[in-house]
Amino acid sequence: MKALRFAGGRLSLDDIPPPFAGGEALVRVTRSGICNTDIEIVRGYAGFEGTIGHEFVGVVESAFDRPELIGKRVVGEINAGCGTCEKCLAGDPRHCPARTVLGITGRDGAHAEYLTLPTANLIEVPDIVPDEQAVFAEPLAAAWGIGEMVDIEPDTKVAVIGDGKLGLLCAMSLGLVCDSVLNIGKHRSKLDIAASADVETMLLNDIDRSHINRFDVVVEASGSESGFETALELVRPRGTIVLKSTFHGTPTWNASRVVVEEITVVGSRCGRFAPAVELLASGRIDVTRLIDREMRLSDGVEAMSKASQKGALKLLLRP
Amino acid sequence: MKALRFAGGRLSLDDIPPPFAGGEALVRVTRSGICNTDIEIVRGYAGFEGTIGHEFVGVVESAFDRPELIGKRVVGEINAGCGTCEKCLAGDPRHCPARTVLGITGRDGAHAEYLTLPTANLIEVPDIVPDEQAVFAEPLAAAWGIGEMVDIEPDTKVAVIGDGKLGLLCAMSLGLVCDSVLNIGKHRSKLDIAASADVETMLLNDIDRSHINRFDVVVEASGSESGFETALELVRPRGTIVLKSTFHGTPTWNASRVVVEEITVVGSRCGRFAPAVELLASGRIDVTRLIDREMRLSDGVEAMSKASQKGALKLLLRP
Repeated sequence: MKALRFAGGRLSLDDIPPPFAGGEALVRVTRSGICNTDIEIVRGYAGFEGTIGHEFVGVVESAFDRPELIGKRVVGEINAGCGTCEKCLAGDPRHCPARTVLGITGRDGAHAEYLTLPTANLIEVPDIVPDEQAVFAEPLAAAWGIGEMVDIEPDTKVAVIGDGKLGLLCAMSLGLVCDSVLNIGKHRSKLDIAASADVETMLLNDIDRSHINRFDVVVEASGSESGFETALELVRPRGTIVLKSTFHGTPTWNASRVVVEEITVVGSRCGRFAPAVELLASGRIDVTRLIDREMRLSDGVEAMSKASQKGALKLLLRP
Repeated sequence: MKALRFAGGRLSLDDIPPPFAGGEALVRVTRSGICNTDIEIVRGYAGFEGTIGHEFVGVVESAFDRPELIGKRVVGEINAGCGTCEKCLAGDPRHCPARTVLGITGRDGAHAEYLTLPTANLIEVPDIVPDEQAVFAEPLAAAWGIGEMVDIEPDTKVAVIGDGKLGLLCAMSLGLVCDSVLNIGKHRSKLDIAASADVETMLLNDIDRSHINRFDVVVEASGSESGFETALELVRPRGTIVLKSTFHGTPTWNASRVVVEEITVVGSRCGRFAPAVELLASGRIDVTRLIDREMRLSDGVEAMSKASQKGALKLLLRP
């Protein structure tokens, strides 16, 4: 099968044997999405080698312990736990210390014709959600997962910094819960996507003194050091900053301000898929506006290059 | 009166007129304590000029709006709010944007014969608590204030990094609430003070793999960049790091680890005085073991030099 792989410091489209499912499900990928993490991995983040990609929708071809899944259209939680540790036994393998992560840690990923995952990770996709929306289940779960870590109420004043794919998803999904969400970014054309979902938007340059210390919760989704600095400016004393993006290297931070203003900084990574799939099925969020283009998996190397370009939105791959 | 003042980049013991109390209380200081923040201020932190010092106990000489306080022995909350903003009206001037802070921001401090504070800031000290213990009300309130920001239960596994005055106070006071507190530091002699309060202790060099990702809550009270790195190692996924110390400059941090492990970082500064005074009165914590020595206010410049020396514990000043 074709698979987009990173090894020896090089990204290439390889022809490899389909994976052996063993005790897991074999899934035929119908769409995969290129995430910034894929781009980071090709830059050396996480030291991963193998097939990249972790956003997908596909059809189950075989399922050792849940044969009723065969033929079903599914998305899948990307963390596969050991199944025996405290975290796994509590039903949450996302922090299993021995976990593998699809296309990120110790497990071949989704930019391929086939992948395998434990059947427990798979979630059926309702017919009403087409492939090009279902493939957003993973990033939407990550955005929606903020509510799992931080108390968000209708009257919570929220700012989201970053108008990339994740920033927009955070702003659009928080906008479904909160009356007041401000999405701050550098690109008017991207911010317009959030605006179309009735989220207030603002160019970074337009921030002024009236915004300082005004927000209960600030979501940092730009992945830049300056984004965190801006978050520290915007958040109120005793407010919360949610870190959604991994950062390159080790940025600096004004830790003293965190202490003096008694700010809470919460790291938030993966969310749960089931609520994200429900949200897609409800039609309350239009993720298709985030699609930049769809390309063939066979053009995966070129697609990665396009996805890395400034201003690119979501690139989908079709095997 | 004598006052230990920092101005024009220089620390000196000056003779100045006693402060005018106006609508506030005039307090005759009987003991003041040298805090690391005093030392930081003399290094330029916070850009403060004036009389330094914010840990004190004293006797009320005049009190415009609460004459019943006159002659009473008191300690005092160091943040003086505007009295009219949302925070002040909610009874918590600690985050009033227009606040002054005793010996730190816009208000002369406690290393002097007299100071003034709003009467609302003053808390009577029970007779059972001698001056040399009462003067610890402020740092003990800061340590005890962790419980105001973070949920601490008897079965919460806690590590405290730092064996300075604040680290020891955090470890000793948390030890009153939690069954399992580990105080980690570089000085056996200081750790022995925590050990005498039945807190488990460990030298930093003795940390091994068995401690990694083991703690629900890690309190960073060393004020060093490496202390935060250690905290990130020790805290479990989805655990909490409490930042108690302000840091010099802008340290670097592994923000990606905060995201991937979904760690919460909570800044914690000032606590409430009333519970700290109650704690001192209860006799459940012996703060006198933290006293390095007592000196005369007139030797304040020398005392600051001694307090800055490696290994120094709490220096008290007596006018």
